[in-house]
Amino acid sequence: MRTIDWDDEKGVVELIDQTLLPADYKIVVCARVDELIDAIKRLKVRGAPALGVAGAFGVVLACKNVRNETELKAEIEKLKKARPTAINLSYGVNRALQAAMRGRTVQEMKSYALDEAKRLAEEDVAVNKKIGEYGSELLDDGDVVLTHCNAGRLACVDWGTALGVIRTAIEKGKRIEVIAGETRPLNQGSRLTVWELLQDKIPVTLITDSMGAAVMREGRVNKVLVGADRVVKEGVFNKIGTYMHAVVSKAHEIPFYVAAPLSSFDTNRSYKDVEIEERSPEELIFCGEKQIAPLDVKVYNPAFDFTPFELIEAVITEKGVIHPTNFLSKKV
Amino acid sequence: MRTIDWDDEKGVVELIDQTLLPADYKIVVCARVDELIDAIKRLKVRGAPALGVAGAFGVVLACKNVRNETELKAEIEKLKKARPTAINLSYGVNRALQAAMRGRTVQEMKSYALDEAKRLAEEDVAVNKKIGEYGSELLDDGDVVLTHCNAGRLACVDWGTALGVIRTAIEKGKRIEVIAGETRPLNQGSRLTVWELLQDKIPVTLITDSMGAAVMREGRVNKVLVGADRVVKEGVFNKIGTYMHAVVSKAHEIPFYVAAPLSSFDTNRSYKDVEIEERSPEELIFCGEKQIAPLDVKVYNPAFDFTPFELIEAVITEKGVIHPTNFLSKKV
Repeated sequence: MRTIDWDDEKGVVELIDQTLLPADYKIVVCARVDELIDAIKRLKVRGAPALGVAGAFGVVLACKNVRNETELKAEIEKLKKARPTAINLSYGVNRALQAAMRGRTVQEMKSYALDEAKRLAEEDVAVNKKIGEYGSELLDDGDVVLTHCNAGRLACVDWGTALGVIRTAIEKGKRIEVIAGETRPLNQGSRLTVWELLQDKIPVTLITDSMGAAVMREGRVNKVLVGADRVVKEGVFNKIGTYMHAVVSKAHEIPFYVAAPLSSFDTNRSYKDVEIEERSPEELIFCGEKQIAPLDVKVYNPAFDFTPFELIEAVITEKGVIHPTNFLSKKV
Repeated sequence: MRTIDWDDEKGVVELIDQTLLPADYKIVVCARVDELIDAIKRLKVRGAPALGVAGAFGVVLACKNVRNETELKAEIEKLKKARPTAINLSYGVNRALQAAMRGRTVQEMKSYALDEAKRLAEEDVAVNKKIGEYGSELLDDGDVVLTHCNAGRLACVDWGTALGVIRTAIEKGKRIEVIAGETRPLNQGSRLTVWELLQDKIPVTLITDSMGAAVMREGRVNKVLVGADRVVKEGVFNKIGTYMHAVVSKAHEIPFYVAAPLSSFDTNRSYKDVEIEERSPEELIFCGEKQIAPLDVKVYNPAFDFTPFELIEAVITEKGVIHPTNFLSKKV
């Protein structure tokens, strides 16, 4: 199934529980908006584009339990705050809300929101295919591409942004291998990227995040390709560790690419004005049941970091490829 | 107790089981050389200087079960191969073996080896204190020092190399804070470095390895200080991820220091001739009992990487501080 979808018969959101992969494949059913908020907070659904669609379906679920526009807007504020850094969640919520506002009754609002959410889901797949088209031109036959976190099918409705580029390149007959960083602390790379690439029989090698520089020095990688949670005036927010890969790829003269739908763009905003979500210390103190640090240690656990455009060779969108250094005037 | 020690009464090696920390503190008793080899392979004892002393005590244990020099040398070959990258293991073995060779009977050989192994253990503590003296001059009051893996008391007999420098600086009244990278895949940073610093009430913040660049960009770090497994002609072998930290610290103009006893020096050798130990894929597929990657994924898991001298501001030894870029003639 798709990463996230609407079940017309039951009137519920269904999504693949990404916290259980790769050991278990289970579908989570969200009949109410608070169930969906919980799923977002626990990263059962994650990835900027998937969060956009989750936000839009969340508006539909919210319509179930409210009597009027005021109550709806109150529910929606909670939904938007489930994860603050990715712009797409707000984007999806706003699109469905705007559509809902055309309704005169709550039932009509729900119906309009649902149409819009479904449209957004279809658009997401179409956008990823376009990103794949443009991005695949940047990859050459025989490339070994390092990626970080999961900007794949599981981060979207289907196909993927960064991994979508790789899928399209392979579809066009190019031989591409992937090196996946495990992406600590939640291992979206080892759990999700590796899982979905193996499903598609795309060759992939798993490394720790700290090996990125070493594999570049050893000549094992010739491109880096990641997704984005938010593109701002001066650069890109993405999963923590992205900036490290960008710095080391620059030092090794390896091109660093970002694949991002225009819905991730928030380019009127400065990086200084973006709140970076800080997550729980437990993510670094435990791994499953195993305790891997003293319980009383102080932990710094930002979920994202910022990569300035001067480290980015190109941003791949559904409208084409942008080379940000071409129009960069000053160092951030 | 010390990280590794000899029990005169029982005639056995005792060591802190570093695989169980921080959840459990247990002492492993090795009465035979194969038990010690097993402890080394499983990283119950690890860290270049501690491995040197383990190697020397290993020679004493080997003397227990052999009838002559030939049999002793055969046992010792297995011991040396327990971990190939750190030079110190061979160094410690060779020192104790050379001493043993002065004995005419196996009993005498054992006795000479034991004296030498104990001398090596005492030397290790003295060397670390000297490294601490020299290195502490490089740290300023108020410094925040990023470290990787564990180059502390647990990597040595006592005090530590990189963490020994921090201990001495604090002893001299400087306020130093530490940021510890967790050091995937075996988490020596989160399990060991954090544990021993908290024991000494030294302020420490834990991060994932991939956050190193981000904390530098945010101005949270002003020095980087690590240990070394082997210093060769052109640079330093140390725990995988060291090279990444060196590259990103260079990009942020943050000095990168290596603390290493002269016993880690193998400067007649080129980095090209050093075998880098590759460890089991399971280390990235499981974390404790939790499966964090598909079982059939291909994994690249080198235990060490190489950092060339041009990225290293200084190497701190027990004889003083070396600034390798002063005498570097060409880029590696």
